[in-house]
Amino acid sequence: MRLLIANPNTTQAVTDKLMAAAREVAAPGTELIGRTAHRGVPYLSTRADAVIGGAVTLEMLAEMHTEVDAAIVAAFADPALGGARELFDIPVVGLAEAAMLTACMLGRSFAIVTFSGGLVPWYRECLDWNGLGNRCAGIFALEGTFKSLADVQEEKGEALVALANEVITRHEADVIILGGAPLSGLARTIGTRIPVPLIDSIQAAVKQAETLVTLKARKAVTGTFRRPAAKECTGIPDALRARFERRDG
Amino acid sequence: MRLLIANPNTTQAVTDKLMAAAREVAAPGTELIGRTAHRGVPYLSTRADAVIGGAVTLEMLAEMHTEVDAAIVAAFADPALGGARELFDIPVVGLAEAAMLTACMLGRSFAIVTFSGGLVPWYRECLDWNGLGNRCAGIFALEGTFKSLADVQEEKGEALVALANEVITRHEADVIILGGAPLSGLARTIGTRIPVPLIDSIQAAVKQAETLVTLKARKAVTGTFRRPAAKECTGIPDALRARFERRDG
Amino acid sequence: MRLLIANPNTTQAVTDKLMAAAREVAAPGTELIGRTAHRGVPYLSTRADAVIGGAVTLEMLAEMHTEVDAAIVAAFADPALGGARELFDIPVVGLAEAAMLTACMLGRSFAIVTFSGGLVPWYRECLDWNGLGNRCAGIFALEGTFKSLADVQEEKGEALVALANEVITRHEADVIILGGAPLSGLARTIGTRIPVPLIDSIQAAVKQAETLVTLKARKAVTGTFRRPAAKECTGIPDALRARFERRDG
Amino acid sequence: MRLLIANPNTTQAVTDKLMAAAREVAAPGTELIGRTAHRGVPYLSTRADAVIGGAVTLEMLAEMHTEVDAAIVAAFADPALGGARELFDIPVVGLAEAAMLTACMLGRSFAIVTFSGGLVPWYRECLDWNGLGNRCAGIFALEGTFKSLADVQEEKGEALVALANEVITRHEADVIILGGAPLSGLARTIGTRIPVPLIDSIQAAVKQAETLVTLKARKAVTGTFRRPAAKECTGIPDALRARFERRDG
Amino acid sequence: MRLLIANPNTTQAVTDKLMAAAREVAAPGTELIGRTAHRGVPYLSTRADAVIGGAVTLEMLAEMHTEVDAAIVAAFADPALGGARELFDIPVVGLAEAAMLTACMLGRSFAIVTFSGGLVPWYRECLDWNGLGNRCAGIFALEGTFKSLADVQEEKGEALVALANEVITRHEADVIILGGAPLSGLARTIGTRIPVPLIDSIQAAVKQAETLVTLKARKAVTGTFRRPAAKECTGIPDALRARFERRDG
Amino acid sequence: MRLLIANPNTTQAVTDKLMAAAREVAAPGTELIGRTAHRGVPYLSTRADAVIGGAVTLEMLAEMHTEVDAAIVAAFADPALGGARELFDIPVVGLAEAAMLTACMLGRSFAIVTFSGGLVPWYRECLDWNGLGNRCAGIFALEGTFKSLADVQEEKGEALVALANEVITRHEADVIILGGAPLSGLARTIGTRIPVPLIDSIQAAVKQAETLVTLKARKAVTGTFRRPAAKECTGIPDALRARFERRDG
Repeated sequence: MRLLIANPNTTQAVTDKLMAAAREVAAPGTELIGRTAHRGVPYLSTRADAVIGGAVTLEMLAEMHTEVDAAIVAAFADPALGGARELFDIPVVGLAEAAMLTACMLGRSFAIVTFSGGLVPWYRECLDWNGLGNRCAGIFALEGTFKSLADVQEEKGEALVALANEVITRHEADVIILGGAPLSGLARTIGTRIPVPLIDSIQAAVKQAETLVTLKARKAVTGTFRRPAAKECTGIPDALRARFERRDG
Repeated sequence: MRLLIANPNTTQAVTDKLMAAAREVAAPGTELIGRTAHRGVPYLSTRADAVIGGAVTLEMLAEMHTEVDAAIVAAFADPALGGARELFDIPVVGLAEAAMLTACMLGRSFAIVTFSGGLVPWYRECLDWNGLGNRCAGIFALEGTFKSLADVQEEKGEALVALANEVITRHEADVIILGGAPLSGLARTIGTRIPVPLIDSIQAAVKQAETLVTLKARKAVTGTFRRPAAKECTGIPDALRARFERRDG
Repeated sequence: MRLLIANPNTTQAVTDKLMAAAREVAAPGTELIGRTAHRGVPYLSTRADAVIGGAVTLEMLAEMHTEVDAAIVAAFADPALGGARELFDIPVVGLAEAAMLTACMLGRSFAIVTFSGGLVPWYRECLDWNGLGNRCAGIFALEGTFKSLADVQEEKGEALVALANEVITRHEADVIILGGAPLSGLARTIGTRIPVPLIDSIQAAVKQAETLVTLKARKAVTGTFRRPAAKECTGIPDALRARFERRDG
Repeated sequence: MRLLIANPNTTQAVTDKLMAAAREVAAPGTELIGRTAHRGVPYLSTRADAVIGGAVTLEMLAEMHTEVDAAIVAAFADPALGGARELFDIPVVGLAEAAMLTACMLGRSFAIVTFSGGLVPWYRECLDWNGLGNRCAGIFALEGTFKSLADVQEEKGEALVALANEVITRHEADVIILGGAPLSGLARTIGTRIPVPLIDSIQAAVKQAETLVTLKARKAVTGTFRRPAAKECTGIPDALRARFERRDG
Repeated sequence: MRLLIANPNTTQAVTDKLMAAAREVAAPGTELIGRTAHRGVPYLSTRADAVIGGAVTLEMLAEMHTEVDAAIVAAFADPALGGARELFDIPVVGLAEAAMLTACMLGRSFAIVTFSGGLVPWYRECLDWNGLGNRCAGIFALEGTFKSLADVQEEKGEALVALANEVITRHEADVIILGGAPLSGLARTIGTRIPVPLIDSIQAAVKQAETLVTLKARKAVTGTFRRPAAKECTGIPDALRARFERRDG
Repeated sequence: MRLLIANPNTTQAVTDKLMAAAREVAAPGTELIGRTAHRGVPYLSTRADAVIGGAVTLEMLAEMHTEVDAAIVAAFADPALGGARELFDIPVVGLAEAAMLTACMLGRSFAIVTFSGGLVPWYRECLDWNGLGNRCAGIFALEGTFKSLADVQEEKGEALVALANEVITRHEADVIILGGAPLSGLARTIGTRIPVPLIDSIQAAVKQAETLVTLKARKAVTGTFRRPAAKECTGIPDALRARFERRDG
């Protein structure tokens, strides 16, 4: 099967990290196709960024959805996930969603640990959207700023290990989720130093996307996730416009 | 004071209805400025539409925010409201938010009544985002389709009166909210036939926007709604890009 | 329009503070009428006090309701608000209710900050009654006692600034509400030192009462807030008894 | 031990029913002391009534608390229960509270069944105040009016049996609570016709009051239910005023 | 009446403590019958233990249920309580359930205080099963290990007093529940040093079991707690098998 | 990898159905090992059954855990899942858990549809244990009894299609889960007649177990799911006893 990993920010280095981590867990028959946003913000970290990232996500999926069996919205907090699930016929999975639901099978409560406090409010909205607040021991971030998105693992890895351990002890988290696409692959490096299960979000997302494809989950043709009726649009990139206007079949 | 009424769909007739209803309740010193989206969808009714409408909302506010004292996101379900509240320095109020919070002062539970079942899933996400599910007796829609957005009040008015009355009786709604910008102004026509308080969303939003301006509610300079740090963007309309990049002061 | 500000405690100095703060935000055409309770307790701070304050509130409204367009229950925690909303035909707004709902338009979470720990349990009951627990970052009070209700702003102003700032930092409150009628007007003095929106409860209540009047929100004639059927009472002040017995029209 | 059954409405016939039902279950050494309100409303059925009933409850307890070991607020929905628990040193139990908590030991969900729809909104506030919404299958009332409070059991008994059975079948209630002091004693008559456990509220309250006395549950001297500090009051009956002012020891 | 106190662990010393504490509060006509598990674990402290303890509980009740009027599952966290309530015709009460529901009549929030951190996750599952999370200020345990279950009161009594007092101050607990059957009887010793009501779980359970018997709460013959239809079993002790297979009448 | 499918009831025909459905989706390298309980009940349908089934589950896992990479508790409602997750070092997944979490990636709300009303209360406890009530549109069962567990698909297939379609229309379920191990494989037969995604629970569980193995989720060595300390047991089958007593390494 073919899986799209759609990174809705414009930083190729993040896509590279996502792809590398994804390949470690993809099934033998799974082909991974990475895409980086052509427009938007270099990384998504606020509710405002997510608005841009959401529109970009739909554009990316509109261009690629006929060529893949499922898609992953590869920004933690899953911009436009609900809209994508309505608009397209293939399964679409979000990074945060996949990580959190996978974590639920490994314990009662998960904690999300991330590298920048600026991400927390947006992550919390994603948690609430998923209705999983009662499974979450908290969302925790390092204090201070970071130098480079591409090198954030090297810069912050040790601090994240310390934070995760503190969270486990003080907040009774049964599972730790590393939040943020730039942390893709870090779990492999630090996993042995975290005394509970540790989730790498893109890896969880790849397995969940494979799951939905293997289970042959059909597109809803009724109910709240059926494809919307055609609407004429203006000022929207062609592929996406065709999808909204149902001119693409 | 000057209030922006930003209609994030592309239908001028809806803006006209919004403005007419808004004028009925605006304070003497309030100047209302209406804007219709230059791009996007003709009306917002799904989660996917809301993604487009959200991006358009930020663009509209970026163009106008320095000229007004507050802004109203004039689509029921409030696309990009959180992002707008982060990004801009003026108060921003949503149609649904204002209607629901106002309704809370008139009873224990409100019901949202609207003209098309396709709107319900999106409205429910807005309700959940506001954390007001325990105040809501339900979201109820007429069955079937409608002919024209501009004439939906005439076409569906009687049916909405019947639905509202049924909801009051069977679901113990203390207040009825008319959901959907195209219904702006309808409350005046049918109010006497609804035996509980009836909320016209744009009218509630105008008064709430005025309230926030009069109370001189300041922009947060810390916390989760402070203005985001500058980020370089690509492929975003100029005014909005300037706001993201903090090149506008 | 004419608004009643009914202070259900017996301290005139509190009414004076309420009126002064209210005047700062009232619309040009709004006439504010203040009343202080003739009986009861000098300030309301416990669940037991609220029982007395609730009965006094209904008595005050019974005497005045025909002379005003709306009423404000001017004790934070809103004694008898639901009962008042049933019994009278005019809109009735509570101080805490108005402050909390207004705060919801300025951020995701509000915190209530007050001058005496004795108030917290009662405030929490009000928060729960409003079903807004999921929007509240906490209710926080200064430790220790206060000397004089009339001078509590001077005595505790600095400490409240410090507490509010701590709450913002440690509990991620997006908005601060000053809880307690004796703090009316304090927001104006300390607002610049609080880095997020700060709500003065009586000011929020005045604007919300004006909103309900302007929106011409009708009295429910059915449902759970319709006026109760007549009941013969004994041992209740005349005006209130007439209202319960429906001898007043 | 001595238990006060304080009926906060003015109808002696209701007190008589309460006492008769209470006697059936009281332990051999328990002396039951019934009191009917000297002022107030003939029966409590609305939020407004509950305000009056709450004040009356505190007055009744102030007169009697030194002569008994525990008190029962004998109106279903428990007016002023929290305030009473603060103000007095003896355990105080509410009719609804005792019935609901007892029901929780007999199944997962209870339903409240009552004789008049006018009672439902007030009962729902009590349910919410107890935080037991997730244990409640619903609050259900007969339609229509009743002739006489004293004879409501005879008039409505059959209809209540039918309603209870319908509720069990359609709403999966594991336990039925008869709501409303005027129904005291009815459970004995109809119990065999209800195929799940049936709770007579005053009987539950008597056993729970005895339980608290036997367990020697102490009065809190700290925390949110400690006795409030002294406050000078005006216009309050002497016994209650003495309690508020702490002139009674 | 006759009450079974079924201790589902294999430690007779715990049964002895349960019985001694129970006798202090049992009504004159109540005969208490204690039983210790013949198989299983020496004390229950984890979710895995509770699985064993649950099966043992059903076995114990199957052997004794025809000889008693009600039964108490005498392990805090109440293994198999729901199953027991289905399977047997007599009322069955759990230690934790009884303690928590009793506590609800003494304040808004209770805290559970126990002697070993290993118990907390299991207790939390019990709290959630009861749906009482919103009444609970937290579950708190001493750090470190204990020497002997039989002497844990002597070893940990002082530390528990300190912990309870800290919890009252810092977490606003209105009531303290001592969690864990080995603490039975401790409340009597330390009660005066805890400034809020203190619940001894077995004592609460005895009074609640007596309450259900006195109220003549019937066995459900319909609904979710009716007795299950007969099923042929294998590999289950005879008395329990007879109950499952309905060969016992 | 090797996956254990542990059917905790004694009906081999159910295991056969589970295995057949599991094989359809297992990855090429996955070896499936089915086991049927040697003791217990022929099918699990009540809370009481689940107590027996839970003990049996632990016994089955104790015998097999060293020979497999992960285990599936193959009864819908997941008896002893939490205990198993504590006690063993391999990932353990429940049928209901896996189905519900997988469904969450296909829509906002799922409904559980099953063949016998007797199952509903137990399923609801499982739903609550997972904290997913806010994602569930309801648990729905056919009325009436069934003839044979082995043939229930043939007997009830048509009725389940009708029920699922009704649930989708009337309760806005985005996804349907077929509840009950005896329905394993039915989704393949009826899937085209259900207009939304349809989940076969064992198939979801197989993919989720594979996911956890592939992600190399580690056993917690701290926190609430660490392996319990050794305890001496009596009257427990040898393999399980060795695990509790930590005599197995």
